[in-house]
Amino acid sequence: MKRNIKLTIAYDGSRYNGWQKQGNTTKTIQGTLEGIICTMTQEPIELQGSGRTDAGVHAYGQVANFHTKSPMSLIQMKEKFMKMLPEDIVVCKIEEVPKQFHSRLSATKKIYQYRIFNSERVNVFQRNYVYQEKNPLDVKAMKKAAKLLIGTHDFRSFCSNKDDKKSTIRTLYAIEILKSRQEIMIRYCGNGFLYNMVRILTGTLLEVGLGRRDWNSMSSIMEEKNRNAAGFTAPSQGLSLYLVRYDTMD
Amino acid sequence: MKRNIKLTIAYDGSRYNGWQKQGNTTKTIQGTLEGIICTMTQEPIELQGSGRTDAGVHAYGQVANFHTKSPMSLIQMKEKFMKMLPEDIVVCKIEEVPKQFHSRLSATKKIYQYRIFNSERVNVFQRNYVYQEKNPLDVKAMKKAAKLLIGTHDFRSFCSNKDDKKSTIRTLYAIEILKSRQEIMIRYCGNGFLYNMVRILTGTLLEVGLGRRDWNSMSSIMEEKNRNAAGFTAPSQGLSLYLVRYDTMD
Repeated sequence: MKRNIKLTIAYDGSRYNGWQKQGNTTKTIQGTLEGIICTMTQEPIELQGSGRTDAGVHAYGQVANFHTKSPMSLIQMKEKFMKMLPEDIVVCKIEEVPKQFHSRLSATKKIYQYRIFNSERVNVFQRNYVYQEKNPLDVKAMKKAAKLLIGTHDFRSFCSNKDDKKSTIRTLYAIEILKSRQEIMIRYCGNGFLYNMVRILTGTLLEVGLGRRDWNSMSSIMEEKNRNAAGFTAPSQGLSLYLVRYDTMD
Repeated sequence: MKRNIKLTIAYDGSRYNGWQKQGNTTKTIQGTLEGIICTMTQEPIELQGSGRTDAGVHAYGQVANFHTKSPMSLIQMKEKFMKMLPEDIVVCKIEEVPKQFHSRLSATKKIYQYRIFNSERVNVFQRNYVYQEKNPLDVKAMKKAAKLLIGTHDFRSFCSNKDDKKSTIRTLYAIEILKSRQEIMIRYCGNGFLYNMVRILTGTLLEVGLGRRDWNSMSSIMEEKNRNAAGFTAPSQGLSLYLVRYDTMD
């Protein structure tokens, strides 16, 4: 009988070529974790993540799961991870979950966070974790624009993927924009996100904050269903996968 | 007539072998800055820092100065620095100062900051900027111990340098210990610091916080005038040179 193991993982994505394994040639989060799990369970393992994160994107609470016959205790696994993982990846939590649990398909909510450092001064300590915008941002306008994005919409304009067959309808439950000193943090809570969606939403909100777009243009951007209608793709280093929620289990 | 230029510098020390130039073989903050200044002024330049920082130690406000005949404006210099500096060093401020100003000898106060992450959880984003202590720390006891260190004392016990000829008497004006969530920040304000003094003071306060030393043992440690009487040398990555003050100029 195989056990189903759920991992909650935090990582600093700066050194990695994203979550998803790409042969053995590049360094990825999934590849690094799978290698360690195979070594400790002595089995060929496939680690399923709740979603891919791009190169340079971070995670506070990525979730992944794998199936194993290993009789190892969760405490033993935790110790192995602590010993074998590099210093920029940490397994925060290990749980045994029902066999039908699937980190991607069972997810009901995801929260992504984007950090902006709004200052002329360079912050050398945050350079890998924030996007710096030197010109002042109008946070009020950004909040008004964000309100128009909430709800169930076709987010095709906010997606880099050109595959026309898949649905681009998603639900955004909330967008929080918090300002504290020079930092502006945007948190997006939704039922799922399209490829580059959070980074394009953020780029578009940044253009609103800079006065280059009207806050009330969001609805017309969505109506166009065309990537070119939306703003630039904000750089990866400001983005983190913050939380993945599974309602039946919480 | 030579001009005297004062720089206020922030850096992430993680990738560097400390402030002080060591031939051309290792990467240092001083060496990196001097190279850029020589290129932009077309002169052989010596950059004088307010003090050395060890490998892995950071700075929010290191101060350094150099003399030059170059007619370049301060704005031109700032632009050159922005273009030529690597992303982990930034010149925050450039000023022209009286010719007698010396970044080390004119300094009247220095503040060093040591950050401790007091949690069982590893924080992958802060790993280069904090020292992690997984066991709970008694901050009250640390504050009581810190009080006994304030004042003018012979800090020989808190110094790694074995050179007996130089005075080891220094004045600590204040030690602030601030706790916010899992983070404990210790700020030391003094007229000068001996080699490794802040790291040994911190290591000793950490041992007090862990209950391995009495808070009231500080005076007897100082009386012993022996490095072995004090605690361990806390690792470099938690330490930053926070501020250097020059009273006549402020």
